Amino acid sequence: MILSKVKNSVKEPRITLVGAGPGDPDLISLKGVKALNDADVVLYDALVNQALLNHAPQKAIKIFVGKNSGDESFSQDAVNKLMIDYALNYGHVVRLKSGDPFVFARGFEEVDFAESYNVQTEIIPGISSATGVPGLHKIPMIYGKLSESFWVLTGTNASGEISPDLVGAAKSAATVVVLMGIERIAEIAAIFQQEGKNKLPVAVIQNGSTAEENVVVGIVDTIAELIEEKKIVSPALLVFGNVVSLHPLFSPIRNFYHLLAQE
Amino acid sequence: MILSKVKNSVKEPRITLVGAGPGDPDLISLKGVKALNDADVVLYDALVNQALLNHAPQKAIKIFVGKNSGDESFSQDAVNKLMIDYALNYGHVVRLKSGDPFVFARGFEEVDFAESYNVQTEIIPGISSATGVPGLHKIPMIYGKLSESFWVLTGTNASGEISPDLVGAAKSAATVVVLMGIERIAEIAAIFQQEGKNKLPVAVIQNGSTAEENVVVGIVDTIAELIEEKKIVSPALLVFGNVVSLHPLFSPIRNFYHLLAQE
Repeated sequence: MILSKVKNSVKEPRITLVGAGPGDPDLISLKGVKALNDADVVLYDALVNQALLNHAPQKAIKIFVGKNSGDESFSQDAVNKLMIDYALNYGHVVRLKSGDPFVFARGFEEVDFAESYNVQTEIIPGISSATGVPGLHKIPMIYGKLSESFWVLTGTNASGEISPDLVGAAKSAATVVVLMGIERIAEIAAIFQQEGKNKLPVAVIQNGSTAEENVVVGIVDTIAELIEEKKIVSPALLVFGNVVSLHPLFSPIRNFYHLLAQE
Repeated sequence: MILSKVKNSVKEPRITLVGAGPGDPDLISLKGVKALNDADVVLYDALVNQALLNHAPQKAIKIFVGKNSGDESFSQDAVNKLMIDYALNYGHVVRLKSGDPFVFARGFEEVDFAESYNVQTEIIPGISSATGVPGLHKIPMIYGKLSESFWVLTGTNASGEISPDLVGAAKSAATVVVLMGIERIAEIAAIFQQEGKNKLPVAVIQNGSTAEENVVVGIVDTIAELIEEKKIVSPALLVFGNVVSLHPLFSPIRNFYHLLAQE
């Protein structure tokens, strides 16, 4: 398929990886908008807000290449090949990915593949939900004595297992942000419990920055139950750390434990 | 000063914290641009690209509130008070901060202060250089077996000391990103050396995403010398981790050590 370059291709093939940001379509960068304005083809992922496609010319080809649950029709390999095929045949391909292309979104593989075909690439970063979404909820990543650093992980690694890094993260004093971890929340909470962090504050933010946003705040011991009760589902991110105590929803929790301690 | 609300104030006072991104003025979000379009006053930091001020109306008041080295005239307290004073007197204040306001930029303090005066606030995240800049250089934060997580710290904490978290970060398998650490590079490298990570790849990126960008790639044992040799100065970020080995500048270094090993 990749060798199907047509003779009448007029434009230089090139690929721009664009980070679409966490969900709100206005959180894409101005540079990302300009790339879309100039796109001949847009290949977009499942979590990308489709309103962003309006920045591309009406005649541009727009193709959904996301993975729906259980549907493996668009493997990374298939996306890589589509990208090259469209670039050779149509010119400028914008590869629109949620968040930032180089944080979790496998942008490296796509750039590496494109370069192996000598197709010019450009990278336009995006706001990663890992850093942007907690801030939107007024939870700072770093704050005075509450936290001097933050550690970002996925719930499961490429092998589908909980990353061994999470044990280190639970031991550390860092704010810990876990993406794509909500389905394994009981196991993740257990890792913090093993470190004696039963009362560490936790926030869970579903669909951050969008109209469908949903937030719960609790502690390690209660968070799995709260998630079930409030029906929070993927996509959601987890924030573990004392900085979460700054969230207004944490005040009643703090008061409750103060009362308990006085009994 | 804060009580000097004038009677003829026509607009509702409000403050929007906007993340300006890592340096390239086109890396601000579309939402940030719209906030600037509607600003009566812009208070901007030292690292903010001044080209962004062109998005504000010509008649808007634009005030630099950054700290130049050694100049403490704009303390956090002074900025907080200015923000409120301008909001009460002029209406919409855009507080334009480099990177993301809630990562390192003390956005929480500003929002907290504004809310104590019942001034309405809004937060517009930005691309943090911690996540966006390594990606621009095709260094992924997370990549297969090379890294399953990343840990972000500042070179020195609020007390001006190297954060104890850095010891944990050097022990971990995470990609470690250090902001504002270049002046303490010898001490930071020593922490990695104590963990036996003498040959861990390191990238240093100065003025990431701007025309003045400068990059060096080395290993823990050589990085302090390279920074001096290449005259890399602040603002710069450090990336420690095996993911840095994917950078094209690392190939000759890898080859050199292979040759050494064969001797």
